[in-house]
Amino acid sequence: MYWVWPVVSIIVSLLSFVVAWRFYRYVNDMVTADESIQKWGKLIREGAFSFLRTEYRILAHFVAVAALLIFLFFPPIWISASVMTNISMAISYVAGAVLSGLAGILGMSIATIANVKAAAAAKEGLAKSYMAGFRGGAVMGMAIVGSGLIGASIIYLLYPDDPRFVLAFSFGASSLALFAKAGGGIFTKTADIAADLTGKVELGIPEDDPRNPAVIADNVGDNVGDVAGMGADLFDSNIASLAAALILGVSLNQVPLVFCLSALGLLSSIIGVSTSGVKEGGHPGHALNRGTYLTTGLFFVLTLIATLIFDFEPRLWFAAVIGLAAGVIIGVTSERFTSDEGQPVRRVAKASRNGPAFTIISGFSYGLLSTFPALLGIGGAALIAYLVAAPLGPGYALFGIAISAVGMLSVVGMITSNDAYGPIVDNARGIAEMGGLGEEVLEITDQLDSAGNTAKAITKGFSIGAAGLTVIALLAAYQEILIQAGKPSEFAILSPLVFFGMIVGVAVPAVFSAMLMLGVDKNASRMVREIHRQFDEIPGLKEGKEGVSPDYDRCIEIAAVGALKELLPAGIIVIVVTLAVGFIGGVQAIGGFLAGNIMSGLLLALLMSNAGGMWDNAKKYIETGKYGGKGSAAHKAGVIGDTVGDPFKDTAGPSINTQITVVSLVASLCATLFAAFSLLG
Amino acid sequence: MYWVWPVVSIIVSLLSFVVAWRFYRYVNDMVTADESIQKWGKLIREGAFSFLRTEYRILAHFVAVAALLIFLFFPPIWISASVMTNISMAISYVAGAVLSGLAGILGMSIATIANVKAAAAAKEGLAKSYMAGFRGGAVMGMAIVGSGLIGASIIYLLYPDDPRFVLAFSFGASSLALFAKAGGGIFTKTADIAADLTGKVELGIPEDDPRNPAVIADNVGDNVGDVAGMGADLFDSNIASLAAALILGVSLNQVPLVFCLSALGLLSSIIGVSTSGVKEGGHPGHALNRGTYLTTGLFFVLTLIATLIFDFEPRLWFAAVIGLAAGVIIGVTSERFTSDEGQPVRRVAKASRNGPAFTIISGFSYGLLSTFPALLGIGGAALIAYLVAAPLGPGYALFGIAISAVGMLSVVGMITSNDAYGPIVDNARGIAEMGGLGEEVLEITDQLDSAGNTAKAITKGFSIGAAGLTVIALLAAYQEILIQAGKPSEFAILSPLVFFGMIVGVAVPAVFSAMLMLGVDKNASRMVREIHRQFDEIPGLKEGKEGVSPDYDRCIEIAAVGALKELLPAGIIVIVVTLAVGFIGGVQAIGGFLAGNIMSGLLLALLMSNAGGMWDNAKKYIETGKYGGKGSAAHKAGVIGDTVGDPFKDTAGPSINTQITVVSLVASLCATLFAAFSLLG
Repeated sequence: MYWVWPVVSIIVSLLSFVVAWRFYRYVNDMVTADESIQKWGKLIREGAFSFLRTEYRILAHFVAVAALLIFLFFPPIWISASVMTNISMAISYVAGAVLSGLAGILGMSIATIANVKAAAAAKEGLAKSYMAGFRGGAVMGMAIVGSGLIGASIIYLLYPDDPRFVLAFSFGASSLALFAKAGGGIFTKTADIAADLTGKVELGIPEDDPRNPAVIADNVGDNVGDVAGMGADLFDSNIASLAAALILGVSLNQVPLVFCLSALGLLSSIIGVSTSGVKEGGHPGHALNRGTYLTTGLFFVLTLIATLIFDFEPRLWFAAVIGLAAGVIIGVTSERFTSDEGQPVRRVAKASRNGPAFTIISGFSYGLLSTFPALLGIGGAALIAYLVAAPLGPGYALFGIAISAVGMLSVVGMITSNDAYGPIVDNARGIAEMGGLGEEVLEITDQLDSAGNTAKAITKGFSIGAAGLTVIALLAAYQEILIQAGKPSEFAILSPLVFFGMIVGVAVPAVFSAMLMLGVDKNASRMVREIHRQFDEIPGLKEGKEGVSPDYDRCIEIAAVGALKELLPAGIIVIVVTLAVGFIGGVQAIGGFLAGNIMSGLLLALLMSNAGGMWDNAKKYIETGKYGGKGSAAHKAGVIGDTVGDPFKDTAGPSINTQITVVSLVASLCATLFAAFSLLG
Repeated sequence: MYWVWPVVSIIVSLLSFVVAWRFYRYVNDMVTADESIQKWGKLIREGAFSFLRTEYRILAHFVAVAALLIFLFFPPIWISASVMTNISMAISYVAGAVLSGLAGILGMSIATIANVKAAAAAKEGLAKSYMAGFRGGAVMGMAIVGSGLIGASIIYLLYPDDPRFVLAFSFGASSLALFAKAGGGIFTKTADIAADLTGKVELGIPEDDPRNPAVIADNVGDNVGDVAGMGADLFDSNIASLAAALILGVSLNQVPLVFCLSALGLLSSIIGVSTSGVKEGGHPGHALNRGTYLTTGLFFVLTLIATLIFDFEPRLWFAAVIGLAAGVIIGVTSERFTSDEGQPVRRVAKASRNGPAFTIISGFSYGLLSTFPALLGIGGAALIAYLVAAPLGPGYALFGIAISAVGMLSVVGMITSNDAYGPIVDNARGIAEMGGLGEEVLEITDQLDSAGNTAKAITKGFSIGAAGLTVIALLAAYQEILIQAGKPSEFAILSPLVFFGMIVGVAVPAVFSAMLMLGVDKNASRMVREIHRQFDEIPGLKEGKEGVSPDYDRCIEIAAVGALKELLPAGIIVIVVTLAVGFIGGVQAIGGFLAGNIMSGLLLALLMSNAGGMWDNAKKYIETGKYGGKGSAAHKAGVIGDTVGDPFKDTAGPSINTQITVVSLVASLCATLFAAFSLLG
C-alpha cells in the first residue's frame, strides 16, 4: 500500500490545477476597457516573455549538458550494467527543470495579465482589484506546488525503492531556480539601475517616463525576479525537502507520512486561497494574513486527524508542526526587523541625517544583528525536531529534521500565492500611473501594493528559513547515502578533511554573491551604453516627439543576455569548487564543505536580505516627511542606502538559497563518485 | 630536562628586554629642538595616557571580577580540595592581563616620544627619521613578545604538568586585548568621525585645525588603536597559540619543541630588528620587508639546526614552517587585494564615478571575494600541518596544527615592530604638518608613512591568519581537555547539539561586530555634543582668537569612557551566550559553537578589514588625480566609501579576532564545568 499517499498527492495536485485554471479564467475574463493601460500591459508582457525566451534558450543548453553528464556518470555508465537507470536519472532531471519552467511560464503569463486587470478593476473598488491580484498570484502558487508534487509522486511510484530519482528531479528544479532566481535577480537590478542612472540622474526625467528605453525592462524586472524567480526558488526548496525526506524515510518505512504531509499541506493551501477575499473598505494585508493563518490552522488539524486515523507517529507530526511554526516565526521576525514600525528602520533613517556613510553603517549593523533571531529559529527548530524524533529509534532523529522542513514547506502554496500577489499589484500601480487612471484608483492600488510589500518581506524570511531547514535535511540525506554505500559517514569537525572542506565551504556563498553583484554592475554599464546609443541615434526621442518611441526590446534583450552571461561563471565556479573539493578531499571533505556552505550561506543571505529591506524602508520612512522628507540631505542618503540595498536584497541575498541547494544536490548525487575517486579521502 | 627550553626562552626574553631598553634610550636621546612640535607631541602623549588611565581603571574592575570567578569556579572551589590551585589560576589570569598591559604602556610611551623624534629627525634626512620610527616600534615589538614568553615560561616551570595555568594566563591577555583592541577601535573611530563631522563638514576647517576640540583625540586614536590595540592583539594570539600547543603537547612530551620554536623565533626577531635600517635615498618599505625576510630566513635556519641537533621531529618542524609560510602568504595576498596597484582598488575607484552606492557595492563585493584566498590559505595550512604530523602517532595530527600556529606567530616580534612603526610615522607626519616644518620634511615623512601603510595592510592579514590557526588550535585544545576528562570529544556535525551550537556560534561574531559599530555611532554623537558645547561656551574659540584653546582633555575623556561603555555590553553578551550554550547544550554544543564562531568570525573579519582597506585606498587613488581627482563626484563617493570603511577596518573587523579567542578560552576553561552541569548535554 506504499502507493496510497502518492496517489492521493497526485489527486490533490490535479485539484490544484483545477483551481489554478478556474482562477486563470476568472482573472482573464475580467474587463479591461481602457486602451492606454492595455498598451502598457502588452509591452510589459512581451518584454517578460522576451526575457523568458532568452533564459530558457540558454538554460536548454545547460540542462542538455547536465543531463548528458548525469547519464554518463550517475553512476558511471562504463562501470554500471544498467543503462536504463542512467537514462531514468537523466529524464528525472530534465523533468524537474521542465516542470518548474512550465509553472514559471504559466505564472508569468497570468501575472502579466493580472496586473492590467487589477489596475482596471481598481476603478470599481478595492475588493475586485484585490481578487485580480490575489487570484493571479494564486495561479502561480497552485501551479508551482501542484506540478512539483505530481512530478515527485509519479517518479516515486515508478521507482519506490530508489529515491535518488527524486533527487535528480530536484536537481533539475534547482538548475532552473539558479537561472530564474540569480539570472532574474541580475536582470531586474540591471534594468533598475540603468533606468535610474540614465533617466533620473542624467536627464532628470521621472521614473516611469516612456522616453526611457529601459523603462519597460525595469517593469519586466519585477515580474522576472519576484514572480518567476521566487516561484522557482520555492518550487526548488519544496521538492528538495521532499527528496531529503524520502531518502531518509525509505529505510524507515515513513514514505507515506511524507506524501501525506505534502498532500494535506497542498489541500490546506487550496482551501486557503479559494476562500481569500477582502470586503470593500477592508484591509488587504489582513486578508493575506487571514489566508495564511487559515491554511496553517487547517494543516495543523488535518494532519493531526490523519496522524490519529492512519496511525502515523505523533512525534513526527509534532516535528512537522515545529517546522511550520518556525517558518512563520522567522518570516514575521524578519518582517519586524525591516518594517518601518520597528526601531532598526527608524534608527537607520535617523542616522541618515549625518550622511550616506551612516545610513550604510547603521543598516549593515542592524542587518548583522537581524541574523541572530533567524539563526536561532532555524537551529532551534532543527534541534527540537531532532530531539522529538530521536526516541523513535536509530535514523529517526535526522528524519525528524527532514520532516520539520517538509512541515515548514507544506503551506508553500499559500505563501507563493501571497508573494506573487506583490509584484502583480506593484505593476498594477505602475500601469495605473502610466495610464493616468487618476488619484482615486492610485489610492486603492497603493493600499494593495503596501500589503504586497509586507507579504514579500514575510516570504523572504520564510524562504530563507525553509531553505535553511531543507539544506540541513539534504546534508542528512547526503550522510544517509554514504551510510547505505558503507562509507564513513560521521563528519567530525576536527577531522582534517572535514575542517578543510568546511573552511573552503564558508568562502563559496561569499564568492558567489560577490560575482552576482559585480555582474549587476557590469551588465548595467552595457545597458547604459545601449540607452545612450538610442538617445543619440533615434531622432526626437530625447525631446519626446510625438510618435517616436525607443527600442524597448533591444534593452530587454541586452539585459537578459548580459544577466545570464554574468550568472554562468558564478554558477559554474560553485559547481567546479564542489567537484574539486570532492575529488581532492573525498566524501569527508564534502560533508564539511556542505556545513560551511550552510553556515556562511545563511549568515550572508539573512544579512543581505534584511539590510537591503531596511534601507528600502528607511528611505520610504524619510519620504513620509521624517528628517526633512523628500529632497532633504537625509533623503539623499536614504536613496544611496536603497541603491546599495537593491542588489543585496534582490540579487545576491535571495540567490544564496538556491546556490546552497544546488551544491547540496550535486554533493548527494556525486557522493558515490567521490567515494570511489578522490585524492586524499 | 623539561626546564631547558623554557629557561632558554626566559634568557632570550631578557635579551629582548635589553634590546627594547637600548632602543628606548636611542630614541629618547635623539634631539628635538623645535618647541612647536614638542607642544603637539606633548598633547598627544598626555591624551594617550589619559585614555590608558580610563581604560585600565575600568579594566581593573573587570579583571578583579573575572579573577574572583576563576578563583571560585575553576574548578568549583566548594568541590575541589585544593584552594591553592584556584588561587594560582586566578594569579595566572591577572599576570596575563598585567603583563600585556605593561607592554602596552611601554609601547605607547615610546610611540608618543618617537613620533616627535621622527618628525624632528626628518629635518636631517630619511635614514635617521626611519630609525626613530622603526626603533620606537621595535620597543613595542620586543616588549610584547618578551613579556608574553617570559610569563608563559615561568608559569609553565611552576606547573609543568598542568598547562591550564598557561591557559588562564592567556585568558588574562585576551581580556586586555578585548579592551585594548575593541575599546581602542571604538575610541579611534569616535574621535575621527566626530572631528570630521564638526570640523570639516560643519565649520569647513581643515583636518588638523587646533581649534577643533576633537583634534587631539583624533591623533591619540591612531596610537590607541594601532599601537596598543594591535600589540595587545598579537600578544594575545601569540600566547594563545602557545597555550594550545602546550595543552596538546604535554602528553606527547613535545613541550621542549614548543618553547624552542618560540625562543628561536624571538631570537630571530631580535636580530632582525637590530639590523634594520635604511640608507639616505633608500626605500623604507624595502627596509621593512628586508627585516621580515631576514627574520623568517633566520627562523627557518635556526629551527632546522635545532631540530637536527636536539633530535626534534622533522615533521613537526615542517608544520611550523608551513604555518609561517601561510602567514606571510596571507599577509601579502591581503596587501595585494587592498593595494592601489591591484585591480580591486582601481575598479572600486572607477565605480565611484557613478556615485557612492557603486563605491559601496563594488568594495563590498571585492571584500567578499578577498575572503577566498585567505580562507584557502588558513584551511590549507591546517590541512597540510595535520597530514604532515599525523603519521607520528595518535594526537600528533592536531598538535601539528598547533605547531603551525606557533610557527606562524614565531616572527611576531618583527611583525609587531613593523606594525607599530606605522602609526608612529603617521603621527610624525601630522606633527610635522601642525608644527610647520616645511615641504622637504613632509616629503620624507610622507615616504615613511606610505611604507607604514603597506606594512599595516600586511600585518592585518597576518594577524587574521594567525588568529585563524590559533583558534583552530584552541578548538583542538578544548577537545584535548575533554579527552583527558573522559568526556565525549568527537564533534560530529550532524549531532543535534553540535549543529545547534554551530548555528548559534555563527551569529556571535555578527552580533559582536554590529554592536561595536553601533557603539561608534552612539559615542560619536556624544562627542559631537561636547564639541558643540565647547564652541558655544568658550568665547573666541570658533573664531580662533589668540590664546584661546579648547578643552582637549574633556573630549578624550568622553570618547574614552563612552568607548568602554559601548564595549562592555558587547563583550558581556559574547561571554553570556557562550555560557548559555554551554550550560544548556553541554560540551558537544560548545564544540559546534566554537567551530561556528571560527567560520563566521574569519569570514567577517576578512571581509570587513579588506573592504575597509580597499575603500581607503580607492579614495587615495582618486586623490592622485584619477577620475577627476580631489573634489570630483568620484572623490565625494570615495570619501563616503572611506567613512563606511573606517569602522569596518579599524573597529569591527580586527576586533573579531579577539572575540573568537576570548570565546575559545572561556570554553576551554569552563569545559569541565559544562561537562558537569548542563541541561541537555
